[in-house]
Amino acid sequence: MAEIIDGKATALAIKDEIADKVKLIKKNGGKTPHLAAILVGDDGASQTYVNGKVTACEYVGFKSTLLKFDSDISEQKLIEVVEGLNAEDDIDGYIVQLPLPKHISAQKITEKIKPEKDVDGFHPVNVGRMVKNLPAYVSATPFGIMKLLERYNIETSGKNCVVIGRSDIVGTPISILLSRKANPGNCTVTICHSRTPDIKSHALNADIIIAALGIPEFLTGDMVKEGAVVIDVGISRVPDASKKRGYALKGDVKYDEVFEKASYITPVPGGVGPMTIASLLYNTLLASEKQIYK
Amino acid sequence: MAEIIDGKATALAIKDEIADKVKLIKKNGGKTPHLAAILVGDDGASQTYVNGKVTACEYVGFKSTLLKFDSDISEQKLIEVVEGLNAEDDIDGYIVQLPLPKHISAQKITEKIKPEKDVDGFHPVNVGRMVKNLPAYVSATPFGIMKLLERYNIETSGKNCVVIGRSDIVGTPISILLSRKANPGNCTVTICHSRTPDIKSHALNADIIIAALGIPEFLTGDMVKEGAVVIDVGISRVPDASKKRGYALKGDVKYDEVFEKASYITPVPGGVGPMTIASLLYNTLLASEKQIYK
Repeated sequence: MAEIIDGKATALAIKDEIADKVKLIKKNGGKTPHLAAILVGDDGASQTYVNGKVTACEYVGFKSTLLKFDSDISEQKLIEVVEGLNAEDDIDGYIVQLPLPKHISAQKITEKIKPEKDVDGFHPVNVGRMVKNLPAYVSATPFGIMKLLERYNIETSGKNCVVIGRSDIVGTPISILLSRKANPGNCTVTICHSRTPDIKSHALNADIIIAALGIPEFLTGDMVKEGAVVIDVGISRVPDASKKRGYALKGDVKYDEVFEKASYITPVPGGVGPMTIASLLYNTLLASEKQIYK
Repeated sequence: MAEIIDGKATALAIKDEIADKVKLIKKNGGKTPHLAAILVGDDGASQTYVNGKVTACEYVGFKSTLLKFDSDISEQKLIEVVEGLNAEDDIDGYIVQLPLPKHISAQKITEKIKPEKDVDGFHPVNVGRMVKNLPAYVSATPFGIMKLLERYNIETSGKNCVVIGRSDIVGTPISILLSRKANPGNCTVTICHSRTPDIKSHALNADIIIAALGIPEFLTGDMVKEGAVVIDVGISRVPDASKKRGYALKGDVKYDEVFEKASYITPVPGGVGPMTIASLLYNTLLASEKQIYK
């Protein structure tokens, strides 16, 4: 039976630490960290995410600026907005909420963000610096996983870690972070994906499993070694007539089965998810203090 | 008994293809690709490497420019040289031969190279773009390994690949390249390193082994599965009184033993090594044709 890794409580603890730090900064007459967010269009989920980020800024004492645009804004105009934020001294970091409308290239916009202000960590410079083990903004999900492992004092050095999923925003960066010489880190990492013929045999060999492939309840109890640490990154809506809203939220892990075998497990919701906003705040604080790019 | 992967012949074939392409470009009145190299100080090995690159440029019909500086050049002056090359339209790509004298930060210099001209692929932007599966200059050794796998029609999809070594210039990038959705690629990649307690058990499970840890003859016959493909990236000087020069060149693979079990093997020297210059020429051609950054 596993100990539950409480992402909500951990995120709250990190937010409280940041809030304390901000109080101290203000007391000493320092600059209040300032996060901006660009929201294009009126997608409900995006709106909810961005509102959550603004509320979190208030909670920790950051300034925040929300820039909203209609979905028909041109790519060129959005680039000008980005360049404006790059030049705006008071803004320490900013994010462009994804997804963007189809006529705008998210990649092009991301590459226009000044790396020093790219607190989402999506700019190639930050990804590349991470690979090269240089100071970098690490994106929210991998960062959140690392923080959970750290806060729960989970030993990673010399452990076999199996990452299922190779996306450029979760699977690949977490495999790099966990394999490098650091703590958490120093894992022997195996990265499995849709072309891996026998994920089960790899998973059964793992001390730590990061499930990030986006298939609900993919990881079943028979795929997990007794005592493994299981981090569930997936979050899918699965039709469920018994629920008022018509669906249930499911992770990539068949929770009840794996719970019985794992030593630690993250629930869905309430595991990795809540950590993402804490990561963003943390990066913004680093930006404000110029800790990454000096 | 293994088939030998002939890096020298493969590199020559690639160089001949590039030479043919350059002839065609010139015939059509196009721009002659132009590679520049910066060499600081009088380190013998560096001088040899750079000379090899200049000779290779001549072979394929590129223009080349060698910029030599005394080892007491200041960091600031070297940055100005780099910025000059960034601005020089005729130069498509350039390299800064490493190592640099201790008073100059190689990282700082690398980050000053315009990513569009970074044909060594060391700039964080190129590393990050590679991770994000965007067009990028891939650095010479991982690129050379990929080309060898491709030219020898080695099936990689769905195969277990074990990379031994996690350096930011070989182990980490090759693990990313081989795991991503591409051909070669689609491997289930395990990255082992100094903190892996049981490299042997991982290696025995591998269809493809990339040995890149820098320990001479580390990978012995008993660590290799019958029929595995073995790529040896190491090259170390090992004292050897029977040799006139006093040392022998050894890879990370105990060649005679592994040769008996592998299906394919790269020798040292003559395997991955000769591919690196071919990779540099290939990247320079891409730069000249603006294929990566459009």
